[in-house]
Amino acid sequence: MAEVLKPVLKEAPYPAIAVVAPRQDPAGVALEKVYSIGALDEKSFKDGDSFIVDFGEHYTGYLIFDLGWAGVSCDAPARLRLIFGEVSTDVTQPLYPYKGWISASWLPDEILNVDFLPQQVRIARRHAFRYVRIEVISTSSNFSATFRNIQVRAVSSAGVDRHQPANYDSPLLRDIDRVSIRTLHECMQTSFEDGPKRDRRLWVGDLRLQALVNYASFNNAALVRRCLYLFAGLQRADGYITACVYEQPTPRIGEVVLIDYAALFGCIVLDYLHATNDRDTAAELWPVARQQLELALNNVDAQGLFVAPQQDYVFIDWNPGQDQSEALQGLDKQAAMQGLLIYSCRQGMALARAVGREEDAARLAENIALMSQAASRRLFDSALGVFVSGEHRQVSWASQAWMALAGVLPQQQMAQALEHVMTMPQAVRPLTPYLYHHMVDALIRCGLSQKAKKLVETYWGAMVKTGTNTFWEAFDPENPMSSPYGSKQIDSYCHAWSCTPSYFIRNGFT
Amino acid sequence: MAEVLKPVLKEAPYPAIAVVAPRQDPAGVALEKVYSIGALDEKSFKDGDSFIVDFGEHYTGYLIFDLGWAGVSCDAPARLRLIFGEVSTDVTQPLYPYKGWISASWLPDEILNVDFLPQQVRIARRHAFRYVRIEVISTSSNFSATFRNIQVRAVSSAGVDRHQPANYDSPLLRDIDRVSIRTLHECMQTSFEDGPKRDRRLWVGDLRLQALVNYASFNNAALVRRCLYLFAGLQRADGYITACVYEQPTPRIGEVVLIDYAALFGCIVLDYLHATNDRDTAAELWPVARQQLELALNNVDAQGLFVAPQQDYVFIDWNPGQDQSEALQGLDKQAAMQGLLIYSCRQGMALARAVGREEDAARLAENIALMSQAASRRLFDSALGVFVSGEHRQVSWASQAWMALAGVLPQQQMAQALEHVMTMPQAVRPLTPYLYHHMVDALIRCGLSQKAKKLVETYWGAMVKTGTNTFWEAFDPENPMSSPYGSKQIDSYCHAWSCTPSYFIRNGFT
Repeated sequence: MAEVLKPVLKEAPYPAIAVVAPRQDPAGVALEKVYSIGALDEKSFKDGDSFIVDFGEHYTGYLIFDLGWAGVSCDAPARLRLIFGEVSTDVTQPLYPYKGWISASWLPDEILNVDFLPQQVRIARRHAFRYVRIEVISTSSNFSATFRNIQVRAVSSAGVDRHQPANYDSPLLRDIDRVSIRTLHECMQTSFEDGPKRDRRLWVGDLRLQALVNYASFNNAALVRRCLYLFAGLQRADGYITACVYEQPTPRIGEVVLIDYAALFGCIVLDYLHATNDRDTAAELWPVARQQLELALNNVDAQGLFVAPQQDYVFIDWNPGQDQSEALQGLDKQAAMQGLLIYSCRQGMALARAVGREEDAARLAENIALMSQAASRRLFDSALGVFVSGEHRQVSWASQAWMALAGVLPQQQMAQALEHVMTMPQAVRPLTPYLYHHMVDALIRCGLSQKAKKLVETYWGAMVKTGTNTFWEAFDPENPMSSPYGSKQIDSYCHAWSCTPSYFIRNGFT
Repeated sequence: MAEVLKPVLKEAPYPAIAVVAPRQDPAGVALEKVYSIGALDEKSFKDGDSFIVDFGEHYTGYLIFDLGWAGVSCDAPARLRLIFGEVSTDVTQPLYPYKGWISASWLPDEILNVDFLPQQVRIARRHAFRYVRIEVISTSSNFSATFRNIQVRAVSSAGVDRHQPANYDSPLLRDIDRVSIRTLHECMQTSFEDGPKRDRRLWVGDLRLQALVNYASFNNAALVRRCLYLFAGLQRADGYITACVYEQPTPRIGEVVLIDYAALFGCIVLDYLHATNDRDTAAELWPVARQQLELALNNVDAQGLFVAPQQDYVFIDWNPGQDQSEALQGLDKQAAMQGLLIYSCRQGMALARAVGREEDAARLAENIALMSQAASRRLFDSALGVFVSGEHRQVSWASQAWMALAGVLPQQQMAQALEHVMTMPQAVRPLTPYLYHHMVDALIRCGLSQKAKKLVETYWGAMVKTGTNTFWEAFDPENPMSSPYGSKQIDSYCHAWSCTPSYFIRNGFT
């Protein structure tokens, strides 16, 4: 079913618009125009020379250019190195030595040997980029290399943004919406990818947020449906869907289950049903969604508390201290997972009812009651006015956000907890836009629309102000150069889970 | 005309036969089998691992293999480095840092990024190799790379060796003939290339020797005709043909005239006429051949001596001291060029007669007489019994060889000069097989067949004894690790001008 729904990608050419070079400025490294792309036609480059072209927008696709020569004679091959950059630091900071802990094979550089010049060069691999740094490694003493008609054959399955607002509350929100939509556009390929640079893969957590923005923009519901079937068709032996699946060379199950991601599967189906009224698909997928909840609920003890198992993981957010002691630095996920599971069961209940499975809904209602009671009694610290998590009674944004979305306490009390945690210096803050999304969503659901808007303007706005065309996988406003992977060069700067401001903006923060 | 004659290459697959590894032996580095290629199917390779596959024969073509993975999950691209080797040192000595003076873009390595595994990988560039070193640069911690069905799609336009002798005088001569024919086979593509690794280009000097061996083996006369028309169709404004021409992306004139190469053009046409009786082609090409002789003769002074001009060069042989003072180390080319030009005029005279141009022949006869007289009177040192060259009266094999081929003195006297120079320690010896060919040819023409055979057995035999499958661009038996380009790694180990032993062997050294 998923393969039947596989979209044909739209491909369109876009030319590079300028040659740029780094300029030191107080905010870091900026790229500024050195000359227009037309002037490149008159230039030639010898061994060791390099330049950076700017496409003016983030594209996902295939780089093409005419490689020629100038000089006495082209009597040898040309060897080039290309580095693709989504943001300026990708092409201004050295790629190597690389010390991150994700595979170096993701680093976006290519060594290219071209035997006979002139010829049109087409990079066979898809890259995600706004900038390309082109270095001439070697020609011969008899010629230098020329570059013309540099363009990208850009691909996407997104189509047309049908729901762009006529007006925005502020220029900043307009910019945030534009960057959000571009981020989603770039991640929509033959599936919803998490990032077109890396991992280029369909993840449950990203899909859920992408789908929400998609309904408010491109409204390509068929692609959501394809992705739902990809997960449903690739369950693990025990019934769990994995946190991600692979599309190429043939669809294949992922290696890891994240219990929170699995539990949220039904939410995606419910959102799809609301957006499309496609009850047949929802009914067909309900058994898979129910199974995810059942498997997650197996980890709830008799008192109604979620207890993390040994073998599968809970995500919630990246930990800031991946490489340090969990006890000291890490996010404790107990309370957030408790809230997330209650939330997922509520959505599951709504889905069960919508497809006529009242018995399933009733059973979920019991789970919700038990877990909600446990949450409010055991995890809410009434002295502090916030939820606490784990044996160290950690306070975090994550716990408050998911408990609020779960509706464990009256709205007024949840709103206070949310406002309070945002003022607590010791509270663990989100690292990724993924968790910021849930914080914004929670603020809205608790009637704090202005605070929600403010958080979007502050957090995503800070990324916009760097000049980025797309939103990033991870962004810590306190430490913009940090990376959850130990190296900025491996980071994805166009990342699906970061595209959700448009969902809020286009729904008026309600 | 040349393009009409462009051949369709035959393509055939050959599998790799073993995985090999270096073993130190007294003669240098040898590669020995570690396991059969079938055993590779069971192995997998992580970051930093490498292995060398052996195809058992020299091939020119496109490497193909099935790249797969083993482990938990293939969750990242694979980055590989391939190094192609014609001989063992190519894959056992480091390629970098490279200090040769020819462009580093000829170094035969590729960095390869493969996004989705498993897939069949086909290297888009043509390479020339017997060995391939495969290094895994990066995978991810979740998988290692596997390699299966490693094969080469080998290309050549040579066809079938129709004239292999039934018997040889010795096993060594059989081996020398086999390696010669393989060398030619590999250099026969859409033109006669000098070397399939480098420069992959049609040179006058190589073509002449290749054509001779070709008539005695594959007898692909159409390819010779194509190459003759490529040169004739790409004359420089002053009428000279250039020393080489380029085929790709479209036929293009070379940058340098070598006067000796240009003068020899008519010899190739004459050999072609003898091999094919294609008088029409010979007649059509005669004006170009005559023009080359006329242009070369412009440099002969009133006394009949060739005086090298400033603007164009004479090749004869590589100089051992390219990077040192010419006066101290270099071959003085005056006498050799004098002999070569007389020889070329003699061949031109025969060609002119064969196509009915008696007037042209008569004019050349006058030039031959004048230059021969000058050679014997001014360049022959009767005290030493050898020809001398230049103001330092240098003695070299080159001078004796070309004077003998020119028939300047009676055969008996020339034979003495040849035998004598071979015993003189201070005489400048040949560096390349190209000049060794002319020495062997001269010995045969002076009735010294046994000495000719001995020289073939000694010089080419020493290469065979290294285990090579093809003959090399340059080989100095006194200093096997030297390179005329400052680095062995850039040398071509399958080089056209080195394939001529088969011509001598198959003609019985007569």
